Amino acid sequence: MRVLGIDPGIAIVGFGFIDKIGHKLVPVQYGSIETKAHTPQEERLMQVYESACSLLDKYKPDTVAVEKLFFNRNVTTAFAVGQARGVIILAAAQRGLPVAEYTPLQVKQAVVGYGKAEKRQVQEMVKMLLKLSAIPKPDDVADALAIGICHAHSAVLTEKINEVTRR
Amino acid sequence: MRVLGIDPGIAIVGFGFIDKIGHKLVPVQYGSIETKAHTPQEERLMQVYESACSLLDKYKPDTVAVEKLFFNRNVTTAFAVGQARGVIILAAAQRGLPVAEYTPLQVKQAVVGYGKAEKRQVQEMVKMLLKLSAIPKPDDVADALAIGICHAHSAVLTEKINEVTRR
Repeated sequence: MRVLGIDPGIAIVGFGFIDKIGHKLVPVQYGSIETKAHTPQEERLMQVYESACSLLDKYKPDTVAVEKLFFNRNVTTAFAVGQARGVIILAAAQRGLPVAEYTPLQVKQAVVGYGKAEKRQVQEMVKMLLKLSAIPKPDDVADALAIGICHAHSAVLTEKINEVTRR
Repeated sequence: MRVLGIDPGIAIVGFGFIDKIGHKLVPVQYGSIETKAHTPQEERLMQVYESACSLLDKYKPDTVAVEKLFFNRNVTTAFAVGQARGVIILAAAQRGLPVAEYTPLQVKQAVVGYGKAEKRQVQEMVKMLLKLSAIPKPDDVADALAIGICHAHSAVLTEKINEVTRR
């Protein structure tokens, strides 16, 4: 199963494709979509959408996971992030892909085992779990991979639950 | 010049196409895009996007105006509205249309001449300026028409400024 984790934003969108092979997690491709400041927002949204479409078509994930709203950001930021999130979810929906959402708390719990973990701890675990030589930069990329790992773990759980239910 | 005014939302998107012919404002078409609750958000976003695309292709506006963020709503709402706004702006950008933004204050000032006008006053002015027999329902439709009127007025101003500058 191939998972795409996304950390949406208007200036930087972090993304990470991860293959779950048995119990192993293998990073396939990760990086960021970046748009320039002082560019009209409609152009930035179009760039985010087109880049998301290209990535989805190139790496063909089975499922997409996006970070759910954070309550501690301001409304202006929420609008901008929401807009970017909207065009990314649209790109996924147009390809028939299910979109899961996780709160930062769920991501931390899944990756570090502790909902109040520090950002740095999450990044170290991402590096370790995916056997990377360094923590991916910028932070948005590490965050996207963390969301992907969270979804891969949850997907394992969901499968197990389904198995139990089927018995 | 044909203006499209949009009041974005995830459950209801109000829209209003208005022609500015000389100093006259003529309503062309107005209504709402509605999506059902308990539908996955990715499906709702796709419905909003597809309806927006159909409307843009059918009524071919020259320019689009969208309400800018309101500071008094909560962050959860801001995210949801931001997502819907994102896919609508994307649809406009994909057709090369400029997207203008106005705050509720600017809209009220343009339509009623008073930034602290009541919702009802704005609706009455929309009805009067567009020579409608009744206030359009739901409120989102009247709001969208108000945004359209605001943009049409501003466009007149912008043209005048450009004329002066060209001299």
